[in-house]
Amino acid sequence: MVLRLDYREPDFESRFAAFLTTKREVSEDVEADVRAIIAEVRARGDEALHDYSLRFDRLDTRSLGLAVSDAEIDAAFEATDPELIAALELAHDRIVSHHRRQMPKDDHYVDDLGVGLGSRWTPIEAVGLYVPGGTASYPSSVLMNAVPAKVAGVSRIVMVVPAREGALNPVVLAAARIAGVSEIYRIGGAQAIAALAYGTETIRPVAKIMGPGNAWVAAAKRQVFGTVGIDMIAGPSEVLVIADPDNDPDWIAADLLAQAEHDVGAQSILMTRDAGFGEAVIGAVERQLSTLGRVETARKSWADFGAVILVPDWDAAVPLANRIAAEHLEIATDDAEALAARIGNAGAIFLGRHTPEVIGDYVGGSNHVLPTARSARFSSGLSVLDYVKRTSILKLDAGQLQSLGPAAITLARAEGLDAHARSVAIRMNLRGRAPEEGRERE
Amino acid sequence: MVLRLDYREPDFESRFAAFLTTKREVSEDVEADVRAIIAEVRARGDEALHDYSLRFDRLDTRSLGLAVSDAEIDAAFEATDPELIAALELAHDRIVSHHRRQMPKDDHYVDDLGVGLGSRWTPIEAVGLYVPGGTASYPSSVLMNAVPAKVAGVSRIVMVVPAREGALNPVVLAAARIAGVSEIYRIGGAQAIAALAYGTETIRPVAKIMGPGNAWVAAAKRQVFGTVGIDMIAGPSEVLVIADPDNDPDWIAADLLAQAEHDVGAQSILMTRDAGFGEAVIGAVERQLSTLGRVETARKSWADFGAVILVPDWDAAVPLANRIAAEHLEIATDDAEALAARIGNAGAIFLGRHTPEVIGDYVGGSNHVLPTARSARFSSGLSVLDYVKRTSILKLDAGQLQSLGPAAITLARAEGLDAHARSVAIRMNLRGRAPEEGRERE
Repeated sequence: MVLRLDYREPDFESRFAAFLTTKREVSEDVEADVRAIIAEVRARGDEALHDYSLRFDRLDTRSLGLAVSDAEIDAAFEATDPELIAALELAHDRIVSHHRRQMPKDDHYVDDLGVGLGSRWTPIEAVGLYVPGGTASYPSSVLMNAVPAKVAGVSRIVMVVPAREGALNPVVLAAARIAGVSEIYRIGGAQAIAALAYGTETIRPVAKIMGPGNAWVAAAKRQVFGTVGIDMIAGPSEVLVIADPDNDPDWIAADLLAQAEHDVGAQSILMTRDAGFGEAVIGAVERQLSTLGRVETARKSWADFGAVILVPDWDAAVPLANRIAAEHLEIATDDAEALAARIGNAGAIFLGRHTPEVIGDYVGGSNHVLPTARSARFSSGLSVLDYVKRTSILKLDAGQLQSLGPAAITLARAEGLDAHARSVAIRMNLRGRAPEEGRERE
Repeated sequence: MVLRLDYREPDFESRFAAFLTTKREVSEDVEADVRAIIAEVRARGDEALHDYSLRFDRLDTRSLGLAVSDAEIDAAFEATDPELIAALELAHDRIVSHHRRQMPKDDHYVDDLGVGLGSRWTPIEAVGLYVPGGTASYPSSVLMNAVPAKVAGVSRIVMVVPAREGALNPVVLAAARIAGVSEIYRIGGAQAIAALAYGTETIRPVAKIMGPGNAWVAAAKRQVFGTVGIDMIAGPSEVLVIADPDNDPDWIAADLLAQAEHDVGAQSILMTRDAGFGEAVIGAVERQLSTLGRVETARKSWADFGAVILVPDWDAAVPLANRIAAEHLEIATDDAEALAARIGNAGAIFLGRHTPEVIGDYVGGSNHVLPTARSARFSSGLSVLDYVKRTSILKLDAGQLQSLGPAAITLARAEGLDAHARSVAIRMNLRGRAPEEGRERE
C-alpha cells in the first residue's frame, strides 16, 4: 500500500513533516577501510592499484595496463549499434548547445574612483570523472559529467571505471569518446578516487573529482575533499509529479515508475487535487510494475517511499512542493508555467503533458545531475560553473589608495590588526616611506 | 630563520613540493562531542541552547533571551565611533556595488526544434551566518558574508554570535545592521550550528550556513551538511607576493605581516628574482615584527610557514604560482597585468605597487572570503552565486517529443531502464495510449 496523504486531514502537517525527513539510504560505515585504501595508494602508487584490481575486480592490470587504449575505445565504438551512437551524438550535441550558454563571462570594469575591479573565470586544469561499473554504468551520465567540463575548457578529463574481470561497457567507452574524455583508466572504488586525488606513476592527479559511486567511492570523495574538489554526493533519485485529472493515468504512472526503477531508495510522489485520479494512477502503477525488467527495485521503491498527496488546490500545493524541493518536478497541468513560477525549490522542472522527465535524462540538453534529498533548497544541478573558478582582481593607483586607505586603516585598527593598518598607511606616506623613517615614527 | 628556496638549486623541486603540502592546521578530534551537542539541540531545542550558554558562555539566556533585541543593536550602533560607522558604510556600499554585478541572469530560450529550455535563478530562502566571538570577531566579515545574501534576495539572514559572559562586539552588531541582517541570536559553537540547521522553538531553521568558526563550529557544519548547505570550510589565510626589486622592502614586509598576524597557521610567501631584495624584505619583516600588537602570532606564522622563493625569471614563477594557488596574490611588478593573465589559480589578485591586499579585506568591494590551502585550483571566493540556486526548465509539445523521443528511448533501453523508455513511448502512441492497449502491447 503506497502512502496516501490528504491535506484536509487534521494530522496532515505532522504526517507530511515526518514524510519529508524519511531516510532513504542506509549509510554503510566504510570510513576506516577507505582510509586504509587511500593510504596504500599514496604509499605504493600503481602497485597498490594493481593489487586492488586483482583483489576486487579479479583483473590483472599489471599485464593489461591501467590505461584503456585507443584501440580498445575504437573497438568499443565499432561494436556499438549505430542507432545508439546516433542517439548519443544527438544527446551530446544538445547538451553542448545548452551548456555553452552557461559559460560565465569575465567582468572587468573601472568604478567612479577609477579603481579597477574584475572577475575572471578560468577552467579547472584537470578533472576526474568516476563512472560506476555494473548496472549503474550509464553512458548518459558520462555525457552529463564530461560535456560541461569540455565546454568549460578543462584540458584534462580523466575517467576511471571499474572493469570486473576485464569487462567494460562499450557504450560507456563510446560515450567517453564522443564527449572528448582525455584518458580512461580501468580502475574503480576508493583506490580510483585516491589515484585521481594524489596521483600515481601512471595517473597524474586532478584538481576536482566528479561522478556518482557506491558507499566506498562516496566515502573516498569525502576523505580527499580539500586536497581536491568534489561535486555533490548524490542520493537516490526522486520525482514530484503535480498532475490534474486531465492526464492519462498511465502516462503519469510511467513517469513515477521511471524514478522508482532506478533504486530501491528512489522516491516518486504524485500531487493531485482529485482523489479518483490519484487512485487511477496507483492502479496504473500496479499494472505497469509487473512488465518492468527492474520490477523488484521499482516495487520496493514505490512501496517504501512512494506517495500520493491530495491537495484542495494548487495554492496549497506550492508551499508543499517548495518544502519537498524535488530533484525532478513534473507539472502536468493547464498553465504549468504559472505554477512553476511559484515553486523556487526544484532541481529541474518539466512543463506540460508532453515533457516527461526522461527527456531531461537523455536528450533535453539540460543536465541530469541534479540536487537530491531536498538539497534543491540550497544547491543547483551540475553545470559549466562546476568546472571553472573565479579570481577577483583589484587595481588601485596612488591617488585611489589615498581615497580608500583611511577607511581601511580605521577598520583594521578596529579589528586590532596593526600590520593590516601599516600595509596601507606606509603606502600613503602616513608613516614615512623609507624604512628608517618608518621605524622612527612607529 | 624563514625558509629560503632557490629555483636554481638542484633539490628545488623536491623542496618546493614538500613546502606545498606542509600542513598548517592541527585538526582537533571533536566529532563525538559535536555529535552529542547536535543531538541535544534536536531533542531539547531552546532548553539545550540555554544550558549550553550557561555552561560555555557563562550567560543566562533564559532570562536575557536568545535574540539580540533591536534596542541592543541601536545602542551598539550609537556606541560605535562615527568614523568607524562611516568606514563600515563605505565598505558596505562598495561591496554592494561589486556584488550586484554578480547576480546571474535567467536564460529562457527556444531551440531550433521549438523546445523551450531555461535556467532560472532564485535566492535561497534563509541563510545562517556564524560570527565567531573574541579576537576573531571581525565586523568586516559580517559585511562580506551578509551583503551577497542581501544582494541575492535572501529574505531571512540569521546571524549567530557567541556572547561570553554577555559581551557582544558592538561593531559587529553595527555591521549587521548596516548589512541588513534580519535576526541575531547570542549563541555560538556547535549548538548554534545545530539550531540553525534543525531549528528550535525560537529559531526557525535556515537552508544554508555560512561563516568561519573554530574546530567545533567546523565539525558541526560538516555534520549538518546535507540537511542544510554549507560554505567552504576555510583554513588559515595566505598571501603570495611576487615583487621586483623596485619595491620598497618595507611595503612588501608590511603586506607579508598583514597575513602573518591573522593566525599562527597563516602563510606569507615572497617570490622574487633578486636575492638581495629578498634579504632586504626579510630584514624589514624582522624590524617591523616587534612593533605589532599581535607580534607572537605573526612571528610564529612567519617562522613556521613563511618563505622567500628566488626565481630566475617570471616564466619560472608562473607555474610555481599556479601550483601554490594562493588565496591572495599580490603582483608588485611592472606590467603586473601581463603576469596576472598567466596565473589562473588564485583566489584574488592585487595588481601593482599601490594595491595592498588589505584594501581587498575591507573596502575594495570584492569579497574577502576566498579559497585557502590551494583550493583556488578548484574553487572560488564567496559571491552572490553562493546564495542562489538554479532550476533548469524544459518544455516540449507533442511534435517535439516525436522528434526527440526515439533517441531517448534508444538510450533508455541501452541502459536497461524499461519504465524510462515507456514514459516516452506511451506519449508517442508507440504503445497505445489507453491502459488496456498499453498492457497488451508490452
